Amino acid sequence: MRQEYETLGPTAANHVPLSPVSFLKRAALVYRDRPAVTYGPITRDWAMFAWRCRSVAAGLERLGIGQGDTVSVLSPNIPELYELHFAVPLTGGVLNTINIRLEPATVAYILTHADSKLVICDTALVPLLRAAFDVNGRTLPVIEIADAVAQAVPTGVGAPYDALLQGDTAPWSLPADECQALALNYTSGTSGRPKGVVYHHRGAWLMAMGTVAGWSLPQQPTYLSVVPMFHCNGWNHPWAMAVVGGHTIFTRDALPEKLLTAMTLHGVTHLGAAPIVLQMLCESAAAPAVPFAPRIKVLTAGAPPPPSVLERAAGMGLEVMQVYGLTETYGHIAQCLWQEDWDALPPAEQAAMQAMQGVAFPMLEEFRIVDRATGLDVPADGLTQGEIAIRGNTVMSGYYKDTAATSEAFRDGWFWSGDAAVIHPGGYVQIRDRLKDVIISGGENISSVEVEAVLHRHPAVQIAAVVARPHVRWGESPCSFIELRAGMHATEADIIAFCRDRLAGFKVPKTVLFQPLPKTATGKIQKYLLREAARALGPQN
Amino acid sequence: MRQEYETLGPTAANHVPLSPVSFLKRAALVYRDRPAVTYGPITRDWAMFAWRCRSVAAGLERLGIGQGDTVSVLSPNIPELYELHFAVPLTGGVLNTINIRLEPATVAYILTHADSKLVICDTALVPLLRAAFDVNGRTLPVIEIADAVAQAVPTGVGAPYDALLQGDTAPWSLPADECQALALNYTSGTSGRPKGVVYHHRGAWLMAMGTVAGWSLPQQPTYLSVVPMFHCNGWNHPWAMAVVGGHTIFTRDALPEKLLTAMTLHGVTHLGAAPIVLQMLCESAAAPAVPFAPRIKVLTAGAPPPPSVLERAAGMGLEVMQVYGLTETYGHIAQCLWQEDWDALPPAEQAAMQAMQGVAFPMLEEFRIVDRATGLDVPADGLTQGEIAIRGNTVMSGYYKDTAATSEAFRDGWFWSGDAAVIHPGGYVQIRDRLKDVIISGGENISSVEVEAVLHRHPAVQIAAVVARPHVRWGESPCSFIELRAGMHATEADIIAFCRDRLAGFKVPKTVLFQPLPKTATGKIQKYLLREAARALGPQN
Repeated sequence: MRQEYETLGPTAANHVPLSPVSFLKRAALVYRDRPAVTYGPITRDWAMFAWRCRSVAAGLERLGIGQGDTVSVLSPNIPELYELHFAVPLTGGVLNTINIRLEPATVAYILTHADSKLVICDTALVPLLRAAFDVNGRTLPVIEIADAVAQAVPTGVGAPYDALLQGDTAPWSLPADECQALALNYTSGTSGRPKGVVYHHRGAWLMAMGTVAGWSLPQQPTYLSVVPMFHCNGWNHPWAMAVVGGHTIFTRDALPEKLLTAMTLHGVTHLGAAPIVLQMLCESAAAPAVPFAPRIKVLTAGAPPPPSVLERAAGMGLEVMQVYGLTETYGHIAQCLWQEDWDALPPAEQAAMQAMQGVAFPMLEEFRIVDRATGLDVPADGLTQGEIAIRGNTVMSGYYKDTAATSEAFRDGWFWSGDAAVIHPGGYVQIRDRLKDVIISGGENISSVEVEAVLHRHPAVQIAAVVARPHVRWGESPCSFIELRAGMHATEADIIAFCRDRLAGFKVPKTVLFQPLPKTATGKIQKYLLREAARALGPQN
Repeated sequence: MRQEYETLGPTAANHVPLSPVSFLKRAALVYRDRPAVTYGPITRDWAMFAWRCRSVAAGLERLGIGQGDTVSVLSPNIPELYELHFAVPLTGGVLNTINIRLEPATVAYILTHADSKLVICDTALVPLLRAAFDVNGRTLPVIEIADAVAQAVPTGVGAPYDALLQGDTAPWSLPADECQALALNYTSGTSGRPKGVVYHHRGAWLMAMGTVAGWSLPQQPTYLSVVPMFHCNGWNHPWAMAVVGGHTIFTRDALPEKLLTAMTLHGVTHLGAAPIVLQMLCESAAAPAVPFAPRIKVLTAGAPPPPSVLERAAGMGLEVMQVYGLTETYGHIAQCLWQEDWDALPPAEQAAMQAMQGVAFPMLEEFRIVDRATGLDVPADGLTQGEIAIRGNTVMSGYYKDTAATSEAFRDGWFWSGDAAVIHPGGYVQIRDRLKDVIISGGENISSVEVEAVLHRHPAVQIAAVVARPHVRWGESPCSFIELRAGMHATEADIIAFCRDRLAGFKVPKTVLFQPLPKTATGKIQKYLLREAARALGPQN
């Protein structure tokens, strides 16, 4: 920089660390008497919500929580968990939201690995926490959230959450460095130990603002909290809602009937949900007789939604935009932006367009599909597969206390997603598979996602997953696992015939198994379990 | 920061300098075949627009422009000026857009003070540039934009702009430091020499994104370019449009008939304009017979708009949001966010609400009204005046080569706006006056803005301005200057009687003068000239 400019260094007036805490501070003033949260009979405005966040922060500080201290939380989506998304950062601490459907041993591992100083635990999850403590052979200080709306009877495992609020409030403090750690989110660990993904204040600020821009969020949307906040901090939506003064509706759990009732009752305008949740909404007996109007804007991610689900969601008045991301990217960093000329397409073709993962969100720097062998971009032909490589300010700082995994993830200045994708001539990216989910049969790559999309069109199929089974002649062959709809029936031969009409021969499943599918807390199918099951069948002839 | 986190330093994968250049790079891919600019018969899509920006950058680099070099521009709002908003930053250079209505001596001063290496000049402004060179007794290299749409005949003062485009393109490069200088914008200099306000890449990125969030910009708006790009780089809207793939319509000048035609022809959805421009639109013979539907979203700033103008604009189908800012804050940093309960108010009361400057934009950190004597916030009573103090990432780096003025502006960790304001009980701020425009009569503060708002309701008044005139007994008294509507008439006694019905006695102008008002390029009334005129009248008895 030229000397004339160098003398103009940052000052307190013109340089402020980017932090989501600033969104809360502004919302407390700008949206002061507008609703921030509603849960059952409780509604709190932004002034009250912010006051509670600051009071909780003061309570945490009394317990010794400060700069860099990990606060772990086991809670479903309720207002207290939302408050902690601001309260913990206000103390300088690091928020560690733990997947509440994990088994005790993994919770135990996370509490130890994350160097937790304190656990805040919902009453219903106290048995899980106690089991985790048993695994570790030691306890940690606990604060218990006894959810009155859920009529919880406190177990007394720790001091009550409400006792944190004692009338005093923490000051509005920001981190000295905007790259200070804000949150620690463990990967779902579909293979091996979960890894601790570190987010910083700068990244969350940019993610929230980029979400507002990319999703075109209006002022004061009514947002239904469905994405678990233990998953990428609810895709960073809790922080984005503070930018626009959103009103977040909580239902504690994601039962389709509860969600549908809340959507109608509160006039929900926006929500995010995994494809499996969308499917449940569409299939619920409580689904409204007429489509929602105005349409409800929905982000979906976690797995590529089958076009059949997109089609049905559209019919229900849900305007779905598929987004793509990973825990390592704070959630969504690509979006299937609707193009004007899709308006004229028939619904099935529209759904096929929406099945693409699309283009970069505005806060992302770059999103490439790379041939790992050559390091070059694959051609935009919709056919050639490569790996999605990502670069930008909403890529994690790294894995906590795992230098080897961090270096591996960041080779050559990119974050390597492990997802195989193609790029279409229009520039939109479409995921073909997790690299490890690609089935290689007779030298041909088979996208399990493509085969699954066909299976989902079969009237008897509720959910389908396709993995590789060893094959004597072709190396691997597609093996499908199918969960049938209640009261419906299909045979292996039916399914194979159905696929044969719609897929190239080598892509047709050679094995069809009917069984409930194992899923993670976020509705992702645990393919590694299915792969193990397919391998256990032995090589096919 | 804890050691475990310190090892996770920034890498090329997870840390990218914030720069508006990244918006263009994304837009070139995401909005590739969607229109970016339209001017007369010319329409270019984002792919072509981005290609031209990079080609111009390559051309500038051939001329030796690089890191930290100032490129000055004298141009009305046309696509070339928009291109330069990306091309100059791509070279690492600093864009210096000069107010085209300045007199030669001031242009000469700016060219010298800014250390310009090159001037890019529209044909119509070549006489101004030549006169400025004459003042300085030296020339600079010149590139001439011969605007074909305006049927310009090139003067040959320098190489033609189009010759910069030679088929090669500059690479997508970002500054090493996001706080690197991006633009140098001289203040309008209502008193004394203009000062060079320095913007950096980080600030412009945040300003653009904050504008998208605060103005709720949708995808692909159709934006009419009215705010001169030599004024805070058009309030940073050129960069914001790249975030959302906006389509910018150019008319070269702001004649109301041209603007209205463009609004109808292109289906304009958004624009920014000074209140004086809104007034001209409302009063134009070309104004549409029925209100625009859907309504056109308008930001207005530069001076507090009289409620009468807001009321008429609403009737025309313009949804006006008043915003507030200064050259030193990249443009708007406060906004009069519409509140739901205003919907039920009668139009005149709505206009009174809209006459407030409101609350902070989402990218701003803080916006206070401070009693300079005590350093404390004034009470939120709507009465007590204080000075607007501002802190955030969209506050300038400082004044170029003016350490004294920079320190003065940044005392105590705040940027001091020089504007006097009150804060209403609802938390909305309202400007009373430039501090130096406050009239102090018999120990009472009189807001010139308040008196002007009343004058604007008089049917014969086109524009009014009120300043202090020395007064023998009370120190100062309000002196009003009025530009009458064509064909209308009013006497001093009429005006005084009109005000007496609507204002406290001490606020009623004691002097009324009828004359055309002096204005700056951006429609601001040059009150310092009126103050001089009022002083020249001598003290009133």
